[in-house]
Amino acid sequence: MNIENRKGGFTLPGEAGYEELTLKLAKQWGADVIRDSDGTELSREILDAGYGIYSTICIIRDHNDWAKKNMDKLQQTFLVTQPKTAVEESVSFRLMEDFFEGQFQVNDSENAMKYWQVYDRTSNEEISREKWSYDREQKTVKVNKTALWHKYTVSFLAYRIWEEISMYNHTTNGWDKEHLMQIDPRYPETQKYMLGWMKDWCEAHPDTTVVRFTSMFYNFVWMWGSSERNRHLFTDWASYDFTVSPLALDEFEKKYGYSMTAEDFVNKGKFHVTHMPGDKKKADWMKFINDFVIQFGKKLVKIVHDYGKEAYVFYDDSWVGNEPYGKNFEKFGFDGIIKAVFSGFESRLCSGVRVKTHELRLHPYLFPTGVDGSPSFLADGDPKAEAQRYWKDVRRAILRQPVDRIGLGGYLHLVERKPEFADYMEELADDFRKIRELHKTGAPMNFRPRVAVLHYWGRLRSWTLSGHFHETYMHDLIHINESLSGLPFEVSFINFEDVKKGALDQIDVLINAGAAGTAWSGGDVWKDCEIVERLTKWVHDGGAFIGVNEPSAVDGYDTYFRMAHILGVDKDTGARVCHGKWKFTAEEIPGLIPEGAGIKSGEGMYLTDGSARVLLENEGQPLLTVHSFGRGCGIYLSSYRICPANTRMLQNLILFGAGEKMDQEGVTSNLNTECAYFPDGHALVVINNTDTEQETLVKVEGKEISCRLKAYQTEVINIFL
Amino acid sequence: MNIENRKGGFTLPGEAGYEELTLKLAKQWGADVIRDSDGTELSREILDAGYGIYSTICIIRDHNDWAKKNMDKLQQTFLVTQPKTAVEESVSFRLMEDFFEGQFQVNDSENAMKYWQVYDRTSNEEISREKWSYDREQKTVKVNKTALWHKYTVSFLAYRIWEEISMYNHTTNGWDKEHLMQIDPRYPETQKYMLGWMKDWCEAHPDTTVVRFTSMFYNFVWMWGSSERNRHLFTDWASYDFTVSPLALDEFEKKYGYSMTAEDFVNKGKFHVTHMPGDKKKADWMKFINDFVIQFGKKLVKIVHDYGKEAYVFYDDSWVGNEPYGKNFEKFGFDGIIKAVFSGFESRLCSGVRVKTHELRLHPYLFPTGVDGSPSFLADGDPKAEAQRYWKDVRRAILRQPVDRIGLGGYLHLVERKPEFADYMEELADDFRKIRELHKTGAPMNFRPRVAVLHYWGRLRSWTLSGHFHETYMHDLIHINESLSGLPFEVSFINFEDVKKGALDQIDVLINAGAAGTAWSGGDVWKDCEIVERLTKWVHDGGAFIGVNEPSAVDGYDTYFRMAHILGVDKDTGARVCHGKWKFTAEEIPGLIPEGAGIKSGEGMYLTDGSARVLLENEGQPLLTVHSFGRGCGIYLSSYRICPANTRMLQNLILFGAGEKMDQEGVTSNLNTECAYFPDGHALVVINNTDTEQETLVKVEGKEISCRLKAYQTEVINIFL
Repeated sequence: MNIENRKGGFTLPGEAGYEELTLKLAKQWGADVIRDSDGTELSREILDAGYGIYSTICIIRDHNDWAKKNMDKLQQTFLVTQPKTAVEESVSFRLMEDFFEGQFQVNDSENAMKYWQVYDRTSNEEISREKWSYDREQKTVKVNKTALWHKYTVSFLAYRIWEEISMYNHTTNGWDKEHLMQIDPRYPETQKYMLGWMKDWCEAHPDTTVVRFTSMFYNFVWMWGSSERNRHLFTDWASYDFTVSPLALDEFEKKYGYSMTAEDFVNKGKFHVTHMPGDKKKADWMKFINDFVIQFGKKLVKIVHDYGKEAYVFYDDSWVGNEPYGKNFEKFGFDGIIKAVFSGFESRLCSGVRVKTHELRLHPYLFPTGVDGSPSFLADGDPKAEAQRYWKDVRRAILRQPVDRIGLGGYLHLVERKPEFADYMEELADDFRKIRELHKTGAPMNFRPRVAVLHYWGRLRSWTLSGHFHETYMHDLIHINESLSGLPFEVSFINFEDVKKGALDQIDVLINAGAAGTAWSGGDVWKDCEIVERLTKWVHDGGAFIGVNEPSAVDGYDTYFRMAHILGVDKDTGARVCHGKWKFTAEEIPGLIPEGAGIKSGEGMYLTDGSARVLLENEGQPLLTVHSFGRGCGIYLSSYRICPANTRMLQNLILFGAGEKMDQEGVTSNLNTECAYFPDGHALVVINNTDTEQETLVKVEGKEISCRLKAYQTEVINIFL
Repeated sequence: MNIENRKGGFTLPGEAGYEELTLKLAKQWGADVIRDSDGTELSREILDAGYGIYSTICIIRDHNDWAKKNMDKLQQTFLVTQPKTAVEESVSFRLMEDFFEGQFQVNDSENAMKYWQVYDRTSNEEISREKWSYDREQKTVKVNKTALWHKYTVSFLAYRIWEEISMYNHTTNGWDKEHLMQIDPRYPETQKYMLGWMKDWCEAHPDTTVVRFTSMFYNFVWMWGSSERNRHLFTDWASYDFTVSPLALDEFEKKYGYSMTAEDFVNKGKFHVTHMPGDKKKADWMKFINDFVIQFGKKLVKIVHDYGKEAYVFYDDSWVGNEPYGKNFEKFGFDGIIKAVFSGFESRLCSGVRVKTHELRLHPYLFPTGVDGSPSFLADGDPKAEAQRYWKDVRRAILRQPVDRIGLGGYLHLVERKPEFADYMEELADDFRKIRELHKTGAPMNFRPRVAVLHYWGRLRSWTLSGHFHETYMHDLIHINESLSGLPFEVSFINFEDVKKGALDQIDVLINAGAAGTAWSGGDVWKDCEIVERLTKWVHDGGAFIGVNEPSAVDGYDTYFRMAHILGVDKDTGARVCHGKWKFTAEEIPGLIPEGAGIKSGEGMYLTDGSARVLLENEGQPLLTVHSFGRGCGIYLSSYRICPANTRMLQNLILFGAGEKMDQEGVTSNLNTECAYFPDGHALVVINNTDTEQETLVKVEGKEISCRLKAYQTEVINIFL
């Protein structure tokens, strides 16, 4: 095996006008593919240099000429006004008052208006149509004969007249270009146009070997408001609000036998945040859209294939309806998936997809300023440090499950000013290829316990919650996922239906983590006794149930946590404020909690029957407990935030819960370092997750190996048996 | 007017064997009444010294001879076992496993057992009687044919064989006396015995001028557990669990036409904590008990009256069913009420009762050790400092509303060791009498706004929540009540029915303060649209709604706070985690927030439409906001904890909310001092609430008055117009 392969698996963003630089860096970084980016083009010299060529297309925008002639086929959404209180007998709404005029335009066509609704939000009742009127001129709705002092809202359909990614780039970068619109493939005319356009495009791009779709049709929801004090009204990376249109609603009714209403989307103004559990209607709508996206999307993929090109999908932006863990994702026929990654969980999200090629688009993007506002390629930017930081998290995930390719995007010329970045990318690419080659020898060693994360969405939302880490940091589960992404366990994501279908048979340790009522904790699903029965039996038979924050919480029972009898702890929501609490003394389980590990305190936590062992506490609040039940156990953590010590603690808890030793072979002595052992490749990879030198010991195959690692270093050590 | 009266209004605990001390202190403190205490007696010398004589009686205990012959007429309670999970086809319970054997004894009489229940707590269903059996020998219940992996509990009736106050005193002080039992007047035989006893007692105590009942029949609930790690299973100062018996249950069914079950009391093991809203059944039961307590209680009072004595009730211990703000309290015919006080709210609770004489039993109690564990009268105790601290809080309440008497309790001989305490009590008693005399000239000046506190219990739980400050400190409302107890406002307590009956007409500022779902916030009552309508109209017409913590919170609507449209803020419980939040800059309203005022941060708070003004914030969380609505406003505080600066801030908020100036006459410039102005008495009373000297300015009648006050000093200043 040659793991010193210095070429391949790297996609370089080329740039016309910088041919020399393009080819020089392609060589330095070992690129085998050159791509264009939004705002860059590839010149003939680059196209002819013998590299594979990726071309990016966004099928729903960049069609403004057609869009302008088909404004009734733009994509849409439901909007709902801010509530207004009736202080007199009528109340009036200027529909667009709360919304960004650049993004939305009222759709007051007859077909759309039948889906409008006026609601009394005080009584939660829809107002009958005779009681309200619409002024088409003023775009106002007037509600008459109000119930005095009640709050009212108007829900209506609006066209989205500015594609959201274009809108964001414009407003962020102060662009002065044409606003791009997004056309909706729901309409047969749009489909016809798109298929023709795709064909023409393939004809016009003979050099392209891979067409990169960005992504399919429907953007994650991103509603902008009229006030600069509250520009982003609602942002959800996994919500389906932007898939709606009168035609889609009509077709849905035909297919499902019932009609979706505005209220099913706007949900009292809360919409259906992915962090909350869904319902039957939402599930039907998601399936309806997903079926459509696949059915039409695969036609586009087929055209690409017909031209002898490969089709990759970029899993960001307009990806709603093509979730890669959806049941039918493979039906698209994509040859590859590309995921922009900041974190380890995003790498696992990509690498676990059933598709031939998995590629990571690394950060920083070659833009002057990073998405987090860093001055990446500006004079005082340090893109190397950024790249190291992101790679540190991604690398540990790749060690557990490989991807096939990595790459960059943006303006290559920016790299000229940052030679230390260019040199670091060379090192990074080489390390990546080493790891990738090692995986080809066979899987790295995992510990025995098979871990599953249980939440409302299950496999569909494997690894991710909804968007990036920094958007979801308030949820314990993203921290857990990020820790797990680099730990030596088999990890799966299951939902409550899976539990009922016997999924627990294949699981040793189950994690349920989140605030009460959220999709991550589960919400009302916990009212189903069968779930509780199956989990209770499974723990009794030896399983370990790890609950974090408000696991299995739901109102209406003797305990707030439905798994309180397993966890030995519960949370009081007020009804037990006068009840005595079991006194306890925190005890130590040697080797379980590393120095530096810590858990934030919850409120109202109490021991149910006093038999749980408290391992961490704060002012009488149990923070970390273990509780035996039959041959298994319940483990409770009042919160989870990622850091090296907590990641190690999580590993220990999983091993401990499953009845395994915590100081096994393959564990580094220094928790700022981690390792992966490839038994078939006879290689141990040790990584330094810090920006300082670290020393560590690891035992594998009975040998104790000592390493000294430079900042962020990846060290591959041959293990001779 | 002579406010320098040095005698009267003081009840001194006499002690046989210390006659000289008794009479000396009676003189020094200006006592007009001498009382006995639990554990002390009065000798002939004291009885004949010309003082009024109080005698304490506890009508339900001290009857052990009779009790032993009538063990079936002891008081009872429902108990519920800890849940057990069925890991096989049957599950067994030793009923007393969780409970203190000293306190409880299973009542397995036929009449009692018909009220026992076995519950499946996983499915929330009662288990039919064929499925469980009782072993009378072993006192065990076996549930058969269980649903595997479900949790079960057994609810049963138990006699209480140790009167709880006696039990507490025994175990705390290591007494080796007979355990006193409590007999239940529900039984006709007990009633007959008690009436006879009362008569005999009056015959035997000709010197007694006042009989002090401690209190009537039923103790606040105080269930003790078998484990020293969790001795106090459930303590609630206002709960009715200890009023139950098979006979009472039978009679209830006859009267109300439906039967109460064990579950109606044990409520999934949570019982019905007073801090949570009640329900119809609980209301019926409370009325049923209250009616009985009054109907029989007044017979005892009548005997006392027939013997030419007065009857006072001590409002602690066995006071369940005789709430002094209950509708029919006056029917008892009590001549006075005595309240043990640590805090200002307790003084207001006492002084507001419709009865002739209001007396406060001050702290420290003349016991070696204080109820809070202080070494009060031990060698290193400082009972003077304790008395000052308690008096500081009580005094400001008495300044607003007078009581007629103060007093002490316990072993007088302990005072011998603490002459500085005796001297301080003299000063305190003189100050008390001055204030009392001033009130006789006319009421002190109040500011215009009439304040009401809105919660589930309304007037019934005026001023108090349930028990003492230190037991309820986690609730914002007790802090608010304590602040209000000494502020110059008319204060009332109303419930939601009162709102519907027009109570708002008499109110300028309404306070709703508490966590979601609690009795103090209101819970499900907020689903009633009429409440929202009336409050909205009232604010629109000029009212000020002050919401604290999670005011008006209830699930199921567009906002979590039903009054969000008034407050301009709401709390996200998860469904809006992806929604944009209005940016804001905290602004200042001059003079509103005193230096040192502070509010704890909540979580998930957001501005509804951006129009609320944020006055305090923490990391983007609004902590204190004001929001105009019509002619009125909504004011939100994310929490409230009492301290001098916050008390002043509350005063300011009330004035500001009601559209009044904040720097009115009658406000001290130094917020460590407060004052009350008696216009008819031409007197300004200025008090120092700290243990250090303070200077302050006050304006009254156009004059600016400057004071320098010693630690805790009460200064009465004549105001000549």
